[in-house]
Amino acid sequence: MSTPIPFAHAGRALAAAALVALSAPAFAQSNVTVFGVLDVGVQQLTNGSKRLNLMSIDGLQTSRLGFRGTEDLGDGMSASFHLEGALSPDTGGSSLDFRRRSTVGLAKKGMGELRIGRDYTPTFWSISRFNAFGTNGVGAASNLLYGFDGLSSTASSVVRASNSVGYHLPDTLGGVYGQAMYAFGEGAPGKYAGARIGYANKDLDVAAAYSTTENNAAGDDFKVTNLGGSYKFGDARVMVLLHRSEQTTRKQDGWSLGGTYSLGLTTLRASVTRAHYTNSVGSVDYSGNQIAFGAVHALSKRTSLYATISRVANSSGAKYVIPGGNTVSAGQGSRGTEAGIYHTF
Amino acid sequence: MSTPIPFAHAGRALAAAALVALSAPAFAQSNVTVFGVLDVGVQQLTNGSKRLNLMSIDGLQTSRLGFRGTEDLGDGMSASFHLEGALSPDTGGSSLDFRRRSTVGLAKKGMGELRIGRDYTPTFWSISRFNAFGTNGVGAASNLLYGFDGLSSTASSVVRASNSVGYHLPDTLGGVYGQAMYAFGEGAPGKYAGARIGYANKDLDVAAAYSTTENNAAGDDFKVTNLGGSYKFGDARVMVLLHRSEQTTRKQDGWSLGGTYSLGLTTLRASVTRAHYTNSVGSVDYSGNQIAFGAVHALSKRTSLYATISRVANSSGAKYVIPGGNTVSAGQGSRGTEAGIYHTF
Amino acid sequence: MSTPIPFAHAGRALAAAALVALSAPAFAQSNVTVFGVLDVGVQQLTNGSKRLNLMSIDGLQTSRLGFRGTEDLGDGMSASFHLEGALSPDTGGSSLDFRRRSTVGLAKKGMGELRIGRDYTPTFWSISRFNAFGTNGVGAASNLLYGFDGLSSTASSVVRASNSVGYHLPDTLGGVYGQAMYAFGEGAPGKYAGARIGYANKDLDVAAAYSTTENNAAGDDFKVTNLGGSYKFGDARVMVLLHRSEQTTRKQDGWSLGGTYSLGLTTLRASVTRAHYTNSVGSVDYSGNQIAFGAVHALSKRTSLYATISRVANSSGAKYVIPGGNTVSAGQGSRGTEAGIYHTF
Repeated sequence: MSTPIPFAHAGRALAAAALVALSAPAFAQSNVTVFGVLDVGVQQLTNGSKRLNLMSIDGLQTSRLGFRGTEDLGDGMSASFHLEGALSPDTGGSSLDFRRRSTVGLAKKGMGELRIGRDYTPTFWSISRFNAFGTNGVGAASNLLYGFDGLSSTASSVVRASNSVGYHLPDTLGGVYGQAMYAFGEGAPGKYAGARIGYANKDLDVAAAYSTTENNAAGDDFKVTNLGGSYKFGDARVMVLLHRSEQTTRKQDGWSLGGTYSLGLTTLRASVTRAHYTNSVGSVDYSGNQIAFGAVHALSKRTSLYATISRVANSSGAKYVIPGGNTVSAGQGSRGTEAGIYHTF
Repeated sequence: MSTPIPFAHAGRALAAAALVALSAPAFAQSNVTVFGVLDVGVQQLTNGSKRLNLMSIDGLQTSRLGFRGTEDLGDGMSASFHLEGALSPDTGGSSLDFRRRSTVGLAKKGMGELRIGRDYTPTFWSISRFNAFGTNGVGAASNLLYGFDGLSSTASSVVRASNSVGYHLPDTLGGVYGQAMYAFGEGAPGKYAGARIGYANKDLDVAAAYSTTENNAAGDDFKVTNLGGSYKFGDARVMVLLHRSEQTTRKQDGWSLGGTYSLGLTTLRASVTRAHYTNSVGSVDYSGNQIAFGAVHALSKRTSLYATISRVANSSGAKYVIPGGNTVSAGQGSRGTEAGIYHTF
Repeated sequence: MSTPIPFAHAGRALAAAALVALSAPAFAQSNVTVFGVLDVGVQQLTNGSKRLNLMSIDGLQTSRLGFRGTEDLGDGMSASFHLEGALSPDTGGSSLDFRRRSTVGLAKKGMGELRIGRDYTPTFWSISRFNAFGTNGVGAASNLLYGFDGLSSTASSVVRASNSVGYHLPDTLGGVYGQAMYAFGEGAPGKYAGARIGYANKDLDVAAAYSTTENNAAGDDFKVTNLGGSYKFGDARVMVLLHRSEQTTRKQDGWSLGGTYSLGLTTLRASVTRAHYTNSVGSVDYSGNQIAFGAVHALSKRTSLYATISRVANSSGAKYVIPGGNTVSAGQGSRGTEAGIYHTF
């Protein structure tokens, strides 16, 4: 009677088979992996004519703390869980939640995995995978591709979706991979449906994804389409990405081209990204470019130092910007330089 | 000087005996068990004429993450801690706290345990233990027994109490078990006193509990009384529970009858619950019934699938409801169906 | 494609050397130590004529939960992380963050450690190290030395600083130890610079520290200076501390004298603390004294019981007070008694 799990008193209170299902996790330690990332650095951001020196975080990977585990159920089946929340190592805040990912999964060998909870959307992955800077740091392709002027912020599904059921193809399809996700709206905006399909071998990786998110009114669905790929030539990997976001009268087309080059423990990174935003109401027509260079130096498998420089240029009406600094006026540019340490555990 | 624990620098700064008491937890890993539950599913709730499809959580057990450990102090004595907070795997939020339980305990074999902090109240346990659905899911007895119209919500002690000191009888009393709890009000409403006493053997389990919680004014104490039991017949266990809540002019009497039936890995569950609420001011007289059926299928000791259906019917003025959906008008009913996966670690 | 770490899919998407830097923490369990403290007790506070009985926390050490680890990088180098947040075991709240400490470190044997993130300020340590009650409980020297009337609360750096870069001397300097810290203001008040230098051998420990924190306006920097030491005579350790806080027209000088005496498993503690606050505007001149006695009894290396009594007396205009109870009027005193249990893991 000392455990707070209802039914656990059930050594006496429930039939034995129920106990199997409901027993308390008394011998559970080995089932859990505690993992995380801390990524902290210093950054200088110059937005328009305003310069700011900052302690920065997440320049290479997003800082996080998580708990996960997998249980073998026999017959090729397994159950798993994954809880992961963001950290802000510069300030120690804010409070820990598990909004990066919070899922329970049920998988069968050769059949794939069913995953329930809050998870990354299929359309998210290509920005992360087919750009050398992904969605982190001053050179992130997402600086431009996430859009602005509310194009993506009105939908909650650009990166993740709550209340979702996802299906992931098994890894036994000769290189074909894919996933589909449906997320409940629960009577409020946010209902999401999306899918991603790809093919990868030792050198090549290509994928396409599409999603639609229900917003407030009929016909205002937020839609994302992307297509990307990477190819390995010796020590180099070249990456290309096409990305489109649409909602009612607003549309943004973007692309990025870049890659990585390995020099042993040091990896060089480079990326050019362009976005072109239009709004047929008022004939708004904006575009922005970003060019970024960087290097990652591995001190070990778990710890790296990195440095990145990036520059965003805008057309006369556009306000694309490296996030975290001052706001820019239309047409102003943004420059960022950062150096940091990445440590995973 | 690298640890943030004041006194830890004390290798030089404090006498050796103090060190024994205050040393930093440098070799502490093996002292901690990380444990938890993720329980997610899909649910359809029909309250009155409004239907809602939802991703649901906690249909079998409340999702949670916790940390706990026990230290052997010698001479049959032990110290322990337990930190446990709720999770919302459907959204990954809200922030993690340890409001499910947060205690330090000191126990001695044959003497029982003293436990300090935030803990479950003695009066809580019978709803959980003597009903087949306990306090979780569409069929939970608590849907009715927690009361409504502010009867229980004005007191913070229906499930747990902060600032509490609890005593638990040892498990060496030939089947008699029990606990008592006092919680400080700290100058605000919330002072709680309650106790529970029971007897359990291989087949039988019975317990009675009583508590009183000081509220805002003299004489408005919130009082809970319950009496319950279960008995095992072969593969079946029958459960009965009587539950009363009172505060000033308001009173609710409730009961539930139900049980579980084991079919190997599958356990069937059924419960009928009735609550009758009166308020002598205005001669309010409401009643509600709930009937619920369900099944739990164990995939392993740690993972189960479950499904439950439940129906609440109200007398003309009552508003008992399966929580999580739309509000009901007086006299309207509530129906819920859910299926989910439960995984513990 | 099942891990949420961008780049992790990179078995195919990135060159091998980048993988070394960016690989997912799949085998990470052994890298993490989960640690913590729970410290709960009961307390009676009498401020002026108002008495309050409370469940208290943190009477010996601040309750906390943390995660930390160290990675050997070879060549005498190591990387480490430390995440630590406060707990409130009396209520289980509030939400967990890591504002006690949140750092990544890079160290080299004989060279010292560079530490980035949120950390304790150099000026904090002496209050904790050179007083028998440190900053915890009814007898804490910080009750007086942290100041009042906004002297310390306007600066965020009395105990910790966010956005900081710290350097710690190596432990190979024949007993000399020290640290320096710079914290970014990031365009807002809070820029901190401070350092601490000390010397310790088997019996003696002395240290001096100084810091300045930029506040809102030019010339209103908050400055802290302290000097302290302890000396071991047989079973006793005597401690002395001088502490000054200044901001514009306000200044507080304080000192404490005290020590510990070991009786095997029990350690006695005593401390006298005095603070004298002046504000040249309005010729304010306040002073307060605190005297505290206590005992700590070790049940094991990880678990102790403790009791402390403390009394604060104020000059006619002063309002120094043991925190946690009612406010006092100018000149009123404060008395506190507490007993609790401390458990670390």
